[in-house]
Amino acid sequence: MPRVLHDLACIDDRRPSPYCWRSKYALAHKGLEFEARPTGFGDIPRLHGGGHKTVPILDDDGRVVPDSWAIADYLDHTYPDRPPLFAGPNERALCRFTEAWLFGALAPLLVPMLALDIHDHARPEDRAYYRESREQRLGRSLEAAAAGREERLEAVRAALNPLRLTLTVQGQRFISGEHPGYADYIAAGFLMWAASVTTLPLLERDDPVVAWFERVRDLHGGLGRSAPMYAIAV
Amino acid sequence: MPRVLHDLACIDDRRPSPYCWRSKYALAHKGLEFEARPTGFGDIPRLHGGGHKTVPILDDDGRVVPDSWAIADYLDHTYPDRPPLFAGPNERALCRFTEAWLFGALAPLLVPMLALDIHDHARPEDRAYYRESREQRLGRSLEAAAAGREERLEAVRAALNPLRLTLTVQGQRFISGEHPGYADYIAAGFLMWAASVTTLPLLERDDPVVAWFERVRDLHGGLGRSAPMYAIAV
Repeated sequence: MPRVLHDLACIDDRRPSPYCWRSKYALAHKGLEFEARPTGFGDIPRLHGGGHKTVPILDDDGRVVPDSWAIADYLDHTYPDRPPLFAGPNERALCRFTEAWLFGALAPLLVPMLALDIHDHARPEDRAYYRESREQRLGRSLEAAAAGREERLEAVRAALNPLRLTLTVQGQRFISGEHPGYADYIAAGFLMWAASVTTLPLLERDDPVVAWFERVRDLHGGLGRSAPMYAIAV
Repeated sequence: MPRVLHDLACIDDRRPSPYCWRSKYALAHKGLEFEARPTGFGDIPRLHGGGHKTVPILDDDGRVVPDSWAIADYLDHTYPDRPPLFAGPNERALCRFTEAWLFGALAPLLVPMLALDIHDHARPEDRAYYRESREQRLGRSLEAAAAGREERLEAVRAALNPLRLTLTVQGQRFISGEHPGYADYIAAGFLMWAASVTTLPLLERDDPVVAWFERVRDLHGGLGRSAPMYAIAV
């Protein structure tokens, strides 16, 4: 039985889920082959007996593991002879802090800006549900949330300052240091979510964040180029 | 010869340097006794043959190590039988990212808000230099930089969201996980800098960040209570 990662898919075979991206990178980091099987929102309740609401779900030769953090822990536990995702509990905790930075500082800006683009890239049968649930959460229409979003680009770019300083003043090639690690997969996966759907380029071409993003996309045989994305920079 | 950390001191024996705080915590984390010797700005050029512009400077029985990162690396290298500050290069790199988050997201807000308070707590002989150099950097008077700073509290609190999410949604006791680590010392040391001088309480009393800050202050025999600070919360 092959190793399968159920991977959220939109139209045009775009793969927007930041959680799926980090799990694909986790598998590649450990040198484990897998199929990233396209999964629509509506497919999820039918997977592995139902009861799951989100992907990624890993099916590792019959062992079913949902949730990106559980998948990472499962991989380190099950394949201890492969390169570790976490050298110890502190690295894991600091990777969670990296995730909290993205969801605390970037997501509040980007989610309203991109919600309409996400809708427009969802499979047709998913759009009504997506619009209704997100408009309720945002408290306004997707169109209203996106209006004037160009004026919010400066704030998005400023919110990336911590990553930018890590790459410039601190001179690191990756968030994890000289070599890429799970923190990079979390952060790049988050930008891959944006790049999968954004019809507005978010960054400036000469931004060191862009060079880092392209470095991560190149890793593991160009994994980050295995699905279509828009240009992240103008 | 005793182990001495040259530690920036202001009036009232306040110890504002975030870099000194993390080095004091690093020494305590490794269980190494030391004297945190009070040092004025003007004392620094006279230390250890001159040539140093900043503290901390560690004098470990005659081995002189300047710079907080060099001190951390020196301690892990010299005392490998003691608890490590960095379990490996990835943890060190992620601690640098934590620092970049503070300096990229918090410092731009807090430095103008606190510059006048810092001035007022500097030793009298240091104030003229401090005012001139900081007003040049800020492009305005210290008083102008601080004006209306109450209105900027909301942005300061929002900028702490990544730490707050780590403690709440992610359920970690410390940034480094179940146990405190160097990332906590960096972040708490940064807030100790603020608390050493701020005459305006910055956070709300029930903020989980405050509970974490007080937890870190309690560590290592109450190290974070060994110098006077203002209340960080109203």
